[in-house]
Amino acid sequence: MKTYLDCIPCFYQQALRAARISGANEEVQKEVLYRLSEMIPDFSLDTSPVQMGREIYAMINKITGKKDPYRELKEISNKMALKMYPEMKVKMKDADDKLLTAVKLAIIGNIIDFGIKDSEEEIYDEINKMLNIDFYIQESDYREHFDYLSFRENLSEVDSILYLADNAGEVVFDRILIEYLVNCCNKTVIYAVRGKPVLNDALVDDSIMCGINHYANIISSGADSPGVALKHCSPEFMRIFNEAEMIISKGQGNYEALSDETSPLFFLLIAKCPLIASHIGCDVGDFILENHLKRKIMPVETAEGKDF
Amino acid sequence: MKTYLDCIPCFYQQALRAARISGANEEVQKEVLYRLSEMIPDFSLDTSPVQMGREIYAMINKITGKKDPYRELKEISNKMALKMYPEMKVKMKDADDKLLTAVKLAIIGNIIDFGIKDSEEEIYDEINKMLNIDFYIQESDYREHFDYLSFRENLSEVDSILYLADNAGEVVFDRILIEYLVNCCNKTVIYAVRGKPVLNDALVDDSIMCGINHYANIISSGADSPGVALKHCSPEFMRIFNEAEMIISKGQGNYEALSDETSPLFFLLIAKCPLIASHIGCDVGDFILENHLKRKIMPVETAEGKDF
Repeated sequence: MKTYLDCIPCFYQQALRAARISGANEEVQKEVLYRLSEMIPDFSLDTSPVQMGREIYAMINKITGKKDPYRELKEISNKMALKMYPEMKVKMKDADDKLLTAVKLAIIGNIIDFGIKDSEEEIYDEINKMLNIDFYIQESDYREHFDYLSFRENLSEVDSILYLADNAGEVVFDRILIEYLVNCCNKTVIYAVRGKPVLNDALVDDSIMCGINHYANIISSGADSPGVALKHCSPEFMRIFNEAEMIISKGQGNYEALSDETSPLFFLLIAKCPLIASHIGCDVGDFILENHLKRKIMPVETAEGKDF
Repeated sequence: MKTYLDCIPCFYQQALRAARISGANEEVQKEVLYRLSEMIPDFSLDTSPVQMGREIYAMINKITGKKDPYRELKEISNKMALKMYPEMKVKMKDADDKLLTAVKLAIIGNIIDFGIKDSEEEIYDEINKMLNIDFYIQESDYREHFDYLSFRENLSEVDSILYLADNAGEVVFDRILIEYLVNCCNKTVIYAVRGKPVLNDALVDDSIMCGINHYANIISSGADSPGVALKHCSPEFMRIFNEAEMIISKGQGNYEALSDETSPLFFLLIAKCPLIASHIGCDVGDFILENHLKRKIMPVETAEGKDF
């Protein structure tokens, strides 16, 4: 997915937010925004927003001197999600269609995103709301963007899955799905996390804290972009990626980075950004399970309804 | 009100929107955003967002070559509001407290803001919703931010009112209040509009199209900022402003420009921006009728809850 002009205001919001999370005072926050202003004309709109995000977060870390500003928030969200784990296990035990339930839980976990959502309580409340309403999912375009049957069918044809992680905390929700894939479907799972800290994205230590290591091999993509930008990934990861029979890709960042690839990808995410929703052809807030190879790319609508 | 760092992403959103409304193609839109990036470090955060807005909109008009890009939208909103006028007159006829009803209608009109709201239909739907729910207003902090009693009391003590206009279309809603002030309260009203086109703000021709000239003297503030920034106003306007017994100030732009003044201002607006809401001490979406001289300035809370 390319970068749209609409992404630029959003870069500023994200940069300000990251600077504040890094504990920067107003002067430093201002410096971050001014530095971003210098960078904007040099960005190519032909690259994905994830590439730009990578440079922006590197700039912020350099200015603030914080290598992993989201460390504390990531631990908070891991703990918050781990607290919910027993409840999710009960949901799984009670579920008629356990695979569907696990998939929905994995998508619900995508709500945990301190890059967008405001506070721990808000996220906790939202997840609980979703858990309690018995997995309500917007069914209006169920078949087009929530292609569960195709997901299940593909699953039955493969032995191994490459699972691309997104945010810390969300990892616990991924674990539910991975446990099921490993224990009940006899699949082998490789769980790929970012190579270096960026935003609240999960790293190896988050995955271990959330217990993924009991079910999957954890690897690093090698990249420090907020999404698996292939050109920044390690050769080892690229070999695994290129050979993967089936890839589960979580979250918007991975979608932005990979939506132009022709790999056997299934995108699992909540569409939070209007441009991504338009790119997918869904509404903001929709739960997405998309068989990438089957998908039909819709023209992107901006706020004015114009196509680019 | 000073400019907060949170205003910067919003400047980009507004600039992109204005460029699109001006009919700019993607290349020109990009030029607008890149030029804004050059301007950002030169802005002083000690000035009000309205001052910055003035420079930004002037830049956009220069790049796009459009002197009044919102002309068509302004006409659409004037016509849309005029269509609602008979319904508002019925509301007034049926109202027990006609002054309160007129004040509420004038505030409802503040919804008409193509700078923020997306489409004509959305605005129309929202206004109709408000009209139909029998003037429901959030009553939670009624006394603090909707100081009707103080407004009514002040009104009884003055002969004339300076009324600062905001958006086109909204003018028809202002007319309801002005008609009442002139015909039923025997007040003299001066209706002040922007001096030059900026955003969708009302000009003299909008006021005439909406029939204000039958009830009030229409003057220009002389300024081309999206709010009455006093340093850009004409000497004639400043004389009237400084001598005014009571000033009704509509909308956020005028609030931003005048919230640090010590004039007998009543701010009538819908709080649409989180920073302005925080500056007032209310929630986004609240209807505000504030006696400025009585008001207690609350510390501004940003998205992270930090005070500056």
